[in-house]
Amino acid sequence: MKKAVVLLSGGLDSATVLAIAKSEGYACHCLSLDYHQRHVAELNAAKRVAAALEATEHRIIQLDLSVFGGSALTDPAIAVPQAPTDGIPVTYVPARNTIMLSLALAWAEVLGARDIFIGVNAVDYSGYPDCRLEYIAAFERMANLATKAAVEGKTIRIHTPLIHLSKAQIIQRGLALGVDYGLTVSCYQADASGRACGRCDSCRIRREGFLAAGIADPTRMMSCEEAGL
Amino acid sequence: MKKAVVLLSGGLDSATVLAIAKSEGYACHCLSLDYHQRHVAELNAAKRVAAALEATEHRIIQLDLSVFGGSALTDPAIAVPQAPTDGIPVTYVPARNTIMLSLALAWAEVLGARDIFIGVNAVDYSGYPDCRLEYIAAFERMANLATKAAVEGKTIRIHTPLIHLSKAQIIQRGLALGVDYGLTVSCYQADASGRACGRCDSCRIRREGFLAAGIADPTRMMSCEEAGL
Repeated sequence: MKKAVVLLSGGLDSATVLAIAKSEGYACHCLSLDYHQRHVAELNAAKRVAAALEATEHRIIQLDLSVFGGSALTDPAIAVPQAPTDGIPVTYVPARNTIMLSLALAWAEVLGARDIFIGVNAVDYSGYPDCRLEYIAAFERMANLATKAAVEGKTIRIHTPLIHLSKAQIIQRGLALGVDYGLTVSCYQADASGRACGRCDSCRIRREGFLAAGIADPTRMMSCEEAGL
Repeated sequence: MKKAVVLLSGGLDSATVLAIAKSEGYACHCLSLDYHQRHVAELNAAKRVAAALEATEHRIIQLDLSVFGGSALTDPAIAVPQAPTDGIPVTYVPARNTIMLSLALAWAEVLGARDIFIGVNAVDYSGYPDCRLEYIAAFERMANLATKAAVEGKTIRIHTPLIHLSKAQIIQRGLALGVDYGLTVSCYQADASGRACGRCDSCRIRREGFLAAGIADPTRMMSCEEAGL
């Protein structure tokens, strides 16, 4: 059975990617990054999703990106915006996808895997530069010069099955593959139990996705009072 | 004063790179990675070097790559070779330079730095694929698509001032800039106090460099008995 490393955040997109990788016949080695993100509920969601979709294994690697800060997700002093903003939002974490893909590349090499899956999306990508196809293509080119495996002719491929899908299309695809989105957490400031605020950019994009797909949204929400409404 | 992120391992090469970056007028923000490497003495050397060369700051980030293993430097079950080997040696750490450059990229973006220095070397590079110029060029291209800074037109440059130098030339360059190589540790299995085994590939390359440069080698060595000779 061919092996793949699947980056799994615990959110809607990466859960769908795991289901897609599995449907393509890969033994899925899931990797999550505990980067001291604001929303630790995300990592618990990743564990639930990996178990529900019967991943071959799931590892969580510790890397404290709050050492660098520079993002609302890693610096408690920067608030998560409650409305859409122009340009790249403060929830952008510097070089996060580059760091996560680098770790996936390392693990893939050790496992002898030649396939890495990541749930980046160019449609709803919130302006993050490291969710664009040209970025992924450049990472793949670099990866194919970086490793011993590459020197030995084993080409690494970065799979981005969601890159051109709308959030509604992602949800429809995942449901067809049996993803339980009630297990996932997208909110940037979910509480410890995984309940969403309903106000941040990520909550808004997710809600609009379920609406556009015509699917009941299984997201568990905080009360208005708890969410500060 | 323009800022640079300098990757500092505690070895001979990165100490020289720090001295070069400083001589070019950069405020040097040094980054070391504690990846649970076999040779922890290296990190203590990095601290000494950063202090001696008056780095602006020095941060050590924790990332346990022994979770993945796959290298003599991260897996105690894989022995460090005591003689040169054909091909890429088992001391190669999968995707290490990619991971370190990714972390440097993240920090550079937060600092507002546009320059990253790394001590890779194509002459004495021991067969490591991620020490080649084409790899570095590919990383730079990727980095210039990856970040918010890049989208805003702030180009990142990866500086590799040692890439075409022999070990002897590196040593001569560093001595001219005041590097005290007695502070550095190159050995893959140095003891806790930083004394070298004299037998591993890294010790051999370092010794040959001092010989070729006609410079007395300040490396502190274990006794023959301690080194298992």
